[in-house]
Amino acid sequence: MAPHEADDDEPLTLQAVRDSWPAYDDDDRVAAFRSMSRPEAEDFFLDVRAQDQAWILRALRPDERRSWIRLLAPDDVADLLQAIPAEERPAYVALLDETTQKDVAGLLAFAEDDAGGLMHPRYVRIRPDLSVDEAITYLRKAARDKLGTLYYAYVLDAESHLLGVVSLRDLFVATPDKRVRDVMRTEVVVADETMDQEALARLFKQHRLFAVPVVDPERRMKGIVTFDDIGAVLEEEATEDIQKIGGTEALDTPYMRTPFPQMVRKRAGWLAVLFVGELFTASAMSRFEDEIKAATVLSLFIPLIISSGGNSGSQATTLVIRALALGEVTLKDWWRVVRRELASGVVLGLLLAPIGMARILLWQVFRLGDYTDHYVLVSLTVGLSVVGVVTWGTLAGSMLPFLLRRLRLDPASASAPFVATLVDVSGLVIYFTLASLILTGTLL
Amino acid sequence: MAPHEADDDEPLTLQAVRDSWPAYDDDDRVAAFRSMSRPEAEDFFLDVRAQDQAWILRALRPDERRSWIRLLAPDDVADLLQAIPAEERPAYVALLDETTQKDVAGLLAFAEDDAGGLMHPRYVRIRPDLSVDEAITYLRKAARDKLGTLYYAYVLDAESHLLGVVSLRDLFVATPDKRVRDVMRTEVVVADETMDQEALARLFKQHRLFAVPVVDPERRMKGIVTFDDIGAVLEEEATEDIQKIGGTEALDTPYMRTPFPQMVRKRAGWLAVLFVGELFTASAMSRFEDEIKAATVLSLFIPLIISSGGNSGSQATTLVIRALALGEVTLKDWWRVVRRELASGVVLGLLLAPIGMARILLWQVFRLGDYTDHYVLVSLTVGLSVVGVVTWGTLAGSMLPFLLRRLRLDPASASAPFVATLVDVSGLVIYFTLASLILTGTLL
Repeated sequence: MAPHEADDDEPLTLQAVRDSWPAYDDDDRVAAFRSMSRPEAEDFFLDVRAQDQAWILRALRPDERRSWIRLLAPDDVADLLQAIPAEERPAYVALLDETTQKDVAGLLAFAEDDAGGLMHPRYVRIRPDLSVDEAITYLRKAARDKLGTLYYAYVLDAESHLLGVVSLRDLFVATPDKRVRDVMRTEVVVADETMDQEALARLFKQHRLFAVPVVDPERRMKGIVTFDDIGAVLEEEATEDIQKIGGTEALDTPYMRTPFPQMVRKRAGWLAVLFVGELFTASAMSRFEDEIKAATVLSLFIPLIISSGGNSGSQATTLVIRALALGEVTLKDWWRVVRRELASGVVLGLLLAPIGMARILLWQVFRLGDYTDHYVLVSLTVGLSVVGVVTWGTLAGSMLPFLLRRLRLDPASASAPFVATLVDVSGLVIYFTLASLILTGTLL
Repeated sequence: MAPHEADDDEPLTLQAVRDSWPAYDDDDRVAAFRSMSRPEAEDFFLDVRAQDQAWILRALRPDERRSWIRLLAPDDVADLLQAIPAEERPAYVALLDETTQKDVAGLLAFAEDDAGGLMHPRYVRIRPDLSVDEAITYLRKAARDKLGTLYYAYVLDAESHLLGVVSLRDLFVATPDKRVRDVMRTEVVVADETMDQEALARLFKQHRLFAVPVVDPERRMKGIVTFDDIGAVLEEEATEDIQKIGGTEALDTPYMRTPFPQMVRKRAGWLAVLFVGELFTASAMSRFEDEIKAATVLSLFIPLIISSGGNSGSQATTLVIRALALGEVTLKDWWRVVRRELASGVVLGLLLAPIGMARILLWQVFRLGDYTDHYVLVSLTVGLSVVGVVTWGTLAGSMLPFLLRRLRLDPASASAPFVATLVDVSGLVIYFTLASLILTGTLL
């Protein structure tokens, strides 16, 4: 599919490329990137994700690459390098100036998902005994030299220990006779290098911060993480959770950019596990084959019963997964959640059961179906089974994420399909047990 | 549950309250809030979500409320008021100073989910003919008066039309002989008042912005939206999508804070719809009652077959929902997605089918089950059905979000349970159709 804007050889505008980029295929992307003016292409290059930057660089001729990679700040170069196959990286590192090479080497020592991996190594550091006016002058010079974000300056001692932070606003509103140590804030929210990005995002959200300094265990300053990296983190975490809830491994790449074999692999794994789990329904069913032979009418409601359990379980598990991810609920709340979900399950079951019972009774009365002479008992069996299965599904669905968290696994793995599969087997047992209790002597 | 830190009458620290707040019940919250020192409580109050601020205000005595509500910026007051029952609002508005009352009234005219509802009405506006040094002096004064965010100034003409934007950095690095119009950037990313918050969040992400000006159709400036509101928006949208994917209406409130009747209502609606949909399986099954009577062995694999379709459909629908939400895929890509998912479905089906067939053949050979003398044909029926149902489930699951988007509904409503229910009925038809094709003359 060629980008339709390109049909008439007009150069593409920056906005058009931005809007369509995620949906382009490889050829479209090369064509679109080359079609922009250099300043527009630079703006574009600076804005896209590291994976896309890496992709663009690799699509360019080797001699074209240097000026593009040098547009980037060291932390962005580090992200980009991680998106490039390891064996090709040295060639790209060689394109950088020496200072940046050193910065990048330091950053690459951290995993991309840690605070250390997200941080910028360049920031404005000042000494506590500077006067307010000296500090402003210094910040102004730092801004001109593009040394880092302008809005905060970090106050460090001679050994780089973080003493406090001043914002430009703090300096502006202070009287000129003050020193930095008088106006700096000493209660600074900090992150340590190994803090994972989800925890870091929560920190930004909780304190509504623009930037967070990253420190080592001795409180020596290592760099800063800024807000613009955090929006991306929040989206990435949500995407992972959503994909897991749907019963896939997290793709880690955009849908259309995920190679077909990789996508099938990420889906097939869970699907096979679920399929094997679902094979137990065949074993469960074979235990009830005599009942089915004696009363085929019972088989008509098997899909209805088991799916009611699956659906209510999916609801409960996704609600609890998200509440855990947002910190609304913690491990120690499990008992409160049990009570709440048990009550929900019973109420929901009692709401659904009459619908199912009415369906059976009405169809029988109006001769739309034939549920044997004992249709009232059949209807009762279905009604009670719905209550039992929905209650059990809700309870199991809500507890599974807690169990996974307790085992230090990701609660989002308690996907909707996983819970549905789990509940299917038990749903059959509940249904046929109630059936033999109620129908023995009549149908059975 | 009493917060355990409070057992020994020690005042709670700000950090302790922050960490535990989401999990507290009402009594805990009142106790914790009152236990902090006033400065800590103020920091806390300023940091929490609007719903929590509203809750705190309502828990305070009426005469205590004024100094708390006046801590807030007008846009935050507007958010807070929306979290207060309409009939109580006037009493809270009366606590504000007149300027803020006016600002707030203007803000409340917008829906909370629009750009207009998120915006701050106070920002720094300057004229284009100011000199660079005059502009810096003015910004410094504005910061002292807390007129708005310090980092950008918006350049407006006499009728408030937005001409451009200057950052403090732009002013700092400019030579003093320049005027604002010489250094301002005129290519400004703007939002219009009615832009929904999801689109707005995408704008921030795309351009890595700190603040976006909101303008009316004549490009008159109305206010700004800043980055700190956007992280919350991203999380909120992801939460809504996740809850919908799980088959619930979006709760809009944290799990533990959602009143029980409201939570049951939000879950019962979809559950009842799905239940009614699932009743069609009973109708479908009754058409095949003769086949089941003739060959009960067929009933054993009903849960396996239909859940395979449901699981593969859940995968496909969540992947496509998220790709649509992130803009990785748009409506016009539907045909590429159809081809991709059709291929995925066939491959996944072909991977699963041998597992099911092997299970039947092995159990028969080792006498663990009895699948009649025609067990090879039964196994073939199950295998082909798995391929058919998985392919169909994958295809249906991936198309449903497109269909909903086309109908201007939320694609996330194509929840995992919804797709599973949809596929159950068709899965039964596929299974029994294949069975009668393969088994007529032997078992049937």
